[in-house]
Amino acid sequence: MSISAFEHPFLSGLAGDNEVAALLGPQAEIDAMLAFETALAEAEAEFGVIPEATALAIAATLTGFTADFEGLKSGTARDGVVIPEFVKQMRAAVGAPHAEHLHFGATSQDVIDTALILRLKRVVALFEQRLAALEAGFENLSNRAGQSTLMGHTRMQAAIPITVADRIESWRAPLARHRDRLSHSAKDLLVVQFGGAAGTLEKLGTKGPAVRASLAARLGLGDAAQWHSQRDRIADFANLLALVTGSLGKFGQDIALLAQMGVEIRLTGGGGSSAMPHKQNPVQAELLVTLARYNAVQLSGIHQAMVHEQERSGAAWTLEWLILPQMVLATGAATLAGLDLIRSIASLGNAS
Amino acid sequence: MSISAFEHPFLSGLAGDNEVAALLGPQAEIDAMLAFETALAEAEAEFGVIPEATALAIAATLTGFTADFEGLKSGTARDGVVIPEFVKQMRAAVGAPHAEHLHFGATSQDVIDTALILRLKRVVALFEQRLAALEAGFENLSNRAGQSTLMGHTRMQAAIPITVADRIESWRAPLARHRDRLSHSAKDLLVVQFGGAAGTLEKLGTKGPAVRASLAARLGLGDAAQWHSQRDRIADFANLLALVTGSLGKFGQDIALLAQMGVEIRLTGGGGSSAMPHKQNPVQAELLVTLARYNAVQLSGIHQAMVHEQERSGAAWTLEWLILPQMVLATGAATLAGLDLIRSIASLGNAS
Amino acid sequence: MSISAFEHPFLSGLAGDNEVAALLGPQAEIDAMLAFETALAEAEAEFGVIPEATALAIAATLTGFTADFEGLKSGTARDGVVIPEFVKQMRAAVGAPHAEHLHFGATSQDVIDTALILRLKRVVALFEQRLAALEAGFENLSNRAGQSTLMGHTRMQAAIPITVADRIESWRAPLARHRDRLSHSAKDLLVVQFGGAAGTLEKLGTKGPAVRASLAARLGLGDAAQWHSQRDRIADFANLLALVTGSLGKFGQDIALLAQMGVEIRLTGGGGSSAMPHKQNPVQAELLVTLARYNAVQLSGIHQAMVHEQERSGAAWTLEWLILPQMVLATGAATLAGLDLIRSIASLGNAS
Amino acid sequence: MSISAFEHPFLSGLAGDNEVAALLGPQAEIDAMLAFETALAEAEAEFGVIPEATALAIAATLTGFTADFEGLKSGTARDGVVIPEFVKQMRAAVGAPHAEHLHFGATSQDVIDTALILRLKRVVALFEQRLAALEAGFENLSNRAGQSTLMGHTRMQAAIPITVADRIESWRAPLARHRDRLSHSAKDLLVVQFGGAAGTLEKLGTKGPAVRASLAARLGLGDAAQWHSQRDRIADFANLLALVTGSLGKFGQDIALLAQMGVEIRLTGGGGSSAMPHKQNPVQAELLVTLARYNAVQLSGIHQAMVHEQERSGAAWTLEWLILPQMVLATGAATLAGLDLIRSIASLGNAS
Repeated sequence: MSISAFEHPFLSGLAGDNEVAALLGPQAEIDAMLAFETALAEAEAEFGVIPEATALAIAATLTGFTADFEGLKSGTARDGVVIPEFVKQMRAAVGAPHAEHLHFGATSQDVIDTALILRLKRVVALFEQRLAALEAGFENLSNRAGQSTLMGHTRMQAAIPITVADRIESWRAPLARHRDRLSHSAKDLLVVQFGGAAGTLEKLGTKGPAVRASLAARLGLGDAAQWHSQRDRIADFANLLALVTGSLGKFGQDIALLAQMGVEIRLTGGGGSSAMPHKQNPVQAELLVTLARYNAVQLSGIHQAMVHEQERSGAAWTLEWLILPQMVLATGAATLAGLDLIRSIASLGNAS
Repeated sequence: MSISAFEHPFLSGLAGDNEVAALLGPQAEIDAMLAFETALAEAEAEFGVIPEATALAIAATLTGFTADFEGLKSGTARDGVVIPEFVKQMRAAVGAPHAEHLHFGATSQDVIDTALILRLKRVVALFEQRLAALEAGFENLSNRAGQSTLMGHTRMQAAIPITVADRIESWRAPLARHRDRLSHSAKDLLVVQFGGAAGTLEKLGTKGPAVRASLAARLGLGDAAQWHSQRDRIADFANLLALVTGSLGKFGQDIALLAQMGVEIRLTGGGGSSAMPHKQNPVQAELLVTLARYNAVQLSGIHQAMVHEQERSGAAWTLEWLILPQMVLATGAATLAGLDLIRSIASLGNAS
Repeated sequence: MSISAFEHPFLSGLAGDNEVAALLGPQAEIDAMLAFETALAEAEAEFGVIPEATALAIAATLTGFTADFEGLKSGTARDGVVIPEFVKQMRAAVGAPHAEHLHFGATSQDVIDTALILRLKRVVALFEQRLAALEAGFENLSNRAGQSTLMGHTRMQAAIPITVADRIESWRAPLARHRDRLSHSAKDLLVVQFGGAAGTLEKLGTKGPAVRASLAARLGLGDAAQWHSQRDRIADFANLLALVTGSLGKFGQDIALLAQMGVEIRLTGGGGSSAMPHKQNPVQAELLVTLARYNAVQLSGIHQAMVHEQERSGAAWTLEWLILPQMVLATGAATLAGLDLIRSIASLGNAS
Repeated sequence: MSISAFEHPFLSGLAGDNEVAALLGPQAEIDAMLAFETALAEAEAEFGVIPEATALAIAATLTGFTADFEGLKSGTARDGVVIPEFVKQMRAAVGAPHAEHLHFGATSQDVIDTALILRLKRVVALFEQRLAALEAGFENLSNRAGQSTLMGHTRMQAAIPITVADRIESWRAPLARHRDRLSHSAKDLLVVQFGGAAGTLEKLGTKGPAVRASLAARLGLGDAAQWHSQRDRIADFANLLALVTGSLGKFGQDIALLAQMGVEIRLTGGGGSSAMPHKQNPVQAELLVTLARYNAVQLSGIHQAMVHEQERSGAAWTLEWLILPQMVLATGAATLAGLDLIRSIASLGNAS
């Protein structure tokens, strides 16, 4: 039973996102790391770096491979990173004479960063769908209620009337821009990491670039020069996550304020209170504000991790591990809460 | 299998703290909430607010109570907070005619905040021990190696020689101050929260203060006026957590720099590399830097949550739920890593 | 004499950037606000919203207009924003019968946001030049020393040799990506804000879009629907600033670590010490780390400000005013320090 | 004309605090540094470290000393810290044969940290007064209106009625705790920093502790072992600043929400709008929210600076210079805005 609210046995009812958790979680991570090692063996066999039979043996073995998690945990405690032990386990399964060729020329960051990117590729696709669904939800709402009037507020004071469509546009338009940003930034983000011990692919000689390009293609990723100590791709993606939750946070705050005023909105299905059963609390609206502030905070940590010294910083890299998955989970939860909240708007504005 | 690095099946080997996780986790939370409801019933019976027989029945039932976590999850999804459903489950177990008196006069924040404080009380005691152990570890190290010389560095440049004892003092002295701060701040922190629906204990009439004092005493907490919308106690405690990890981060950074120079320190048991088996990586030292930067980031979120509107902010309060437990886990992990790192110092400085 | 380190009488020697300060500062702000009001009058005259003679009078008057700063300060204290008083001062200068048409249909956020964007346009152009100069500096350094060897480090431990060119590429390549991001994001950022009291241009009737397009063209900005309560453009730009300083922070950290080791780099012109005149401190390298961490922190605040309630949030908007200019100044200072630091590298690596 | 909103020619009308600015600013800094050097000379003369006549000459010269700010700026640019150049200027003024004894045994951090603490001592005294005035203001308000009723709100929804006194207590009580925390933490904070080049007072031999104690006493500070690389005192103080602004932010948010509802509060003197002259905007209330969020963000940076490597980190220390003064200014502005806002409450609650 997890302490993290995103996975907690009951708090996850509020802040969880099963779909994102499955894409990101430990089993998905293992699967992505196995996919890396298989594709690497195949790419190296393609260019004669390792025997063809070895690549076949590695692929066959890893297909059915089950990791010993207790061993991985001890290894991570000792090495600060799971890969030395994970490679040891895989090599034991592959056996002689092929084992020594598994992971050839690669290092921890190649496996871990690429396995992260493989999972983020699916997350990006999911978030593109969710953003599109949010936009469609706002468009539907605008079609339904857009011509009603709403009191515009500036500095939390009544200003002049606007239309419901005007307000909805302030929720919808940023999401469309985020979707555009996501697709632009995905080109940069969804690339392979492969550099070997210190980024130079020194064991592959002149075949390095070709093997890397083949590895990338086999994994469905773009090719790129190794980037492990250059964390801008990660930080830029984290910014996008915070932009999404930030815009949804504005939506949530607006709904919570409308609900407090109580005259221009009607919500269905609000939450109850143990002391006051009559209340209808705008739970999803408040949650959107929470998640926006959460990601705004976390983003700072991802940017701190850009000060990634030398060829690999244990300190900075581990900081990403503590933060980035939670930001993805928070963003998933916010998109779900946003969709729920749109659906719960029974009426908005004053029909004229 | 949790995604959170503090509880992840293999990353927890690096960043986990089983002892803290057990004190904080969902089962400990349920137990603390049950303790609250039992003590509340007893306190209310003591002052004739509810029948004595009811308090006995509640205490007896809750002793063996097992929560339905799936139900709690659905309830939290609906209400934004677990208590309405949790109370419903407890009342179903207690049955008529006593059930209606369970949770009498209380509300969600009373149970959740007090249950948090009950768990933090144990955490504080553990951290006081760990800080004392760290101080003792540094004192031992200083006794052993303190008279050796070390090159002092300012702006990462060799300055003039200092003693090993001088450097160790810069690691030890702040921890002694933190222990003092912790014991001072614990007086403020370890108090009951009990206010009813909007903080006024309106259902208890003139008996409110007496019931609250009895409730506090039964739970081993201090008495205090309800403070739910005043989050300074929580923020001040979070600051202490970040102070502890910050000071340990300085220790870790210093060790990592010594290890890079490679001539004034010898560590045992450093971590390995999948590409370079000969390396001895100062994994614990880097981890301390990571955890310091992590808590420094998170602290910002706890302080954002001080803007807690009206009698109870769903948005601000939920933000604490996402952050505070992780800060406690990070602090636990840092104290463990600090103790490990001290033990791993085989030699420090140049014997003169 | 300013307390802010970026403008402080002596700390600005370290962290100041006169060029950026001039582009951003109060006089530039006034000038940009005057440009807005002039262009607005001209655009409104073009479409017959106000008389042609009025637009001419406004343009003539504002050309030589000098603001009364004391009055602006009192007005800002009273209104929370400078525009009501600023408009009053401008109208007094323009006089009857034209005065009433000045600022017609506009509101505070139109002037302030557009005046911000006008200044950021120049900042973006300057930063594009600085980034190009940094890339060129790294290329020159690589041409000069790239084939020398350098000990690669992972987890702050010697790993295997790499080339100086390999390391330099980890400094240069992100800057090239940032330049690309900046030019992509500038299209979104450099647009007019014009919406009137609550974003609906209600005083301009059907002429609103045409006037806005003309206003944008006259100011050299892109046209866009009003976006005042949608702060993603600002947050995305702030992210870019932090990306730039983050990548330069990695460069600085690497240089500081090389300088500590003392054998693979030689710097000229390092800073002195009052106690140890012999030291050569890598001041610019450390400053780059400082500025990276600074912007990483500030970015969190800009993202908090995305929770911008309703048509205009005083609280969220003012938060941007406190933070964004400092982030721009920090980025300017980092680009200058980066250029200085490159120039100060007398030798790097071990000639083979 | 400063870009910083706290000192900006017109934004400072909103966010400025002249009194705090005078206590903190560059001239106060110079004065505090001169006080340090004078007291150091006197303390060193007292114990025979330098001649008595020299101490008299130094005291006499520094009394009328005017710094050359342009020189200080160039020196800071070169050295990363002002002290080498400042000492040079002071020594030139003192002249032979005394000059060489000025700053004897001291280093940059001794002067700068102690000069910071000297200024913070006055800031602490001012903030204690301001907190007391805020508490008194709330008590007066409670005496006046406390028995009126107010609708209690949880999750931004009407809950049950409370009294105005209940709500005011949620604003007042934390400030009383902050005042207590400030006085407890001031004992730790208001101490001298004196350690010499690497913290060992190596030039003073056995007289080091006595000179330091005398220096502290002459400056009206507590004595303490040198603490330059142990930044917990600074971080703990920064936490207090954020606690104060956080609690005031809750007050501001509550008032803004009351003002939006518009029926339970009447404010005098709210701000105007350029587009809607009829509006009465709760400017001070929103500003309190802004300043709370600002300090919550900044606190993260001060805690990042706790990772202060070795005997002196240029990077971490400079980060404090960029952030701490702004936090003090923000806290000053918040206390002023809080006092203003209390005064502006013409009525609160519904008289029963």
